[in-house]
Amino acid sequence: MAETGAETGAARPWSAVVLTLFPEMFPGPLGLSLAGKALAEGVWTLDAVDIRGYARDRHRTVDDTPFGGGAGMVMRPDVVSDAVAANHTPERRLIYPSPRGRVLDQALVRELAAGPGVTLVCGRYEGLDQRAIDAWSMEEVSVGDVVLSGGEPAALVMLDAVVRLLPGVTGKAESLAEESFETGLLEYPHYTRPQVWDGRTVPEVLVSGHHGRVAQWRREQAEAITRNRRPDLWARYVEKE
Amino acid sequence: MAETGAETGAARPWSAVVLTLFPEMFPGPLGLSLAGKALAEGVWTLDAVDIRGYARDRHRTVDDTPFGGGAGMVMRPDVVSDAVAANHTPERRLIYPSPRGRVLDQALVRELAAGPGVTLVCGRYEGLDQRAIDAWSMEEVSVGDVVLSGGEPAALVMLDAVVRLLPGVTGKAESLAEESFETGLLEYPHYTRPQVWDGRTVPEVLVSGHHGRVAQWRREQAEAITRNRRPDLWARYVEKE
Repeated sequence: MAETGAETGAARPWSAVVLTLFPEMFPGPLGLSLAGKALAEGVWTLDAVDIRGYARDRHRTVDDTPFGGGAGMVMRPDVVSDAVAANHTPERRLIYPSPRGRVLDQALVRELAAGPGVTLVCGRYEGLDQRAIDAWSMEEVSVGDVVLSGGEPAALVMLDAVVRLLPGVTGKAESLAEESFETGLLEYPHYTRPQVWDGRTVPEVLVSGHHGRVAQWRREQAEAITRNRRPDLWARYVEKE
Repeated sequence: MAETGAETGAARPWSAVVLTLFPEMFPGPLGLSLAGKALAEGVWTLDAVDIRGYARDRHRTVDDTPFGGGAGMVMRPDVVSDAVAANHTPERRLIYPSPRGRVLDQALVRELAAGPGVTLVCGRYEGLDQRAIDAWSMEEVSVGDVVLSGGEPAALVMLDAVVRLLPGVTGKAESLAEESFETGLLEYPHYTRPQVWDGRTVPEVLVSGHHGRVAQWRREQAEAITRNRRPDLWARYVEKE
């Protein structure tokens, strides 16, 4: 939990640059709630840059048909590369959201939050010309084994996950430490008022006032849920213990 | 590829209802590009409902502290349940985006696209009181092993993935059949004009005009990328072949 960006914190905001054909998608949901408040307070910055601004012809062409044939369009390497060259600075990580990438997990989210920021290159259509990915050694990162209409929804997820870890964004440090994946387990069930609702009561132990028993119950619940729902996470957890 | 919702197509739009404390996050990115065009054309409908409208007191309280102690707030079961009761109809699937859920993959996306729609219940803070999840038998679905500020970014990803599969939304059926996960493999690299860029050429085979060799090259590339990057997907693919 040391690497939450606290070192770089107050001095310089965490910075996100998003290269996209739809800059009007940003900040979108990131302009509201926790992330929006942090954006307004200067904890982080967000620049959405229109890739179309780097097109070279008067039709502002950004894509073309794929060599070798097939459906869909591919984003031109020259246009994308010019957009990167004009907006990326090497202290930030350069990420191409793509289903072929490393799968985003909370460890990578923490890594990104600990650094100075990211440049996200959002593909549309069939994606970027491979040469642009290679020339810039872009890191490909996936938000799961699904196909999206473009990189933008993935970028929103990545930024949301990172921004809530920046210093001061989420209310209390404890609420970060207890949650899913920080312990290697899925989270235990939560209960709040009313104590009896629709004939359903809150588990007795939670109103017992015994902190030790509460902690033990929560741990057992988190272990049981992880074991039942995600044998893959459970196996890794057991290995580490 | 039969179950893409074509049966239910023209007659009735696919319908998404999102219960959220931030209805202004919707349609957000889904109001633009492919999804936005399909929304405007009535291929699908989107209703964002403010859960706060179902609060019972004059402070419009939707959450409270957790029984058993700990940081964060939990969303009240009575308020959430009233919001579900007033807006959910049983032909739609009732989904709670949550890191504890079944991990979203393209198979589940296809399933959702084939049905009449979804009701998505977005949690904020520490999430929903477990009794609301249980009482409604909500399906928990995760967009990966990361913690988000709420269910909304996950809902945007789910809807984006589903909507592009609805009949008529993505230009050509072929561009769906070839892409990542539809074949069980990650996608091969794409190339477009210019043929030589920055000293980098397009692979010879792609400009050969031999359709058979192009298809073989692409298959080999997709297999190599999958094997190298995602041994888990590769193992499943090899098993099936």
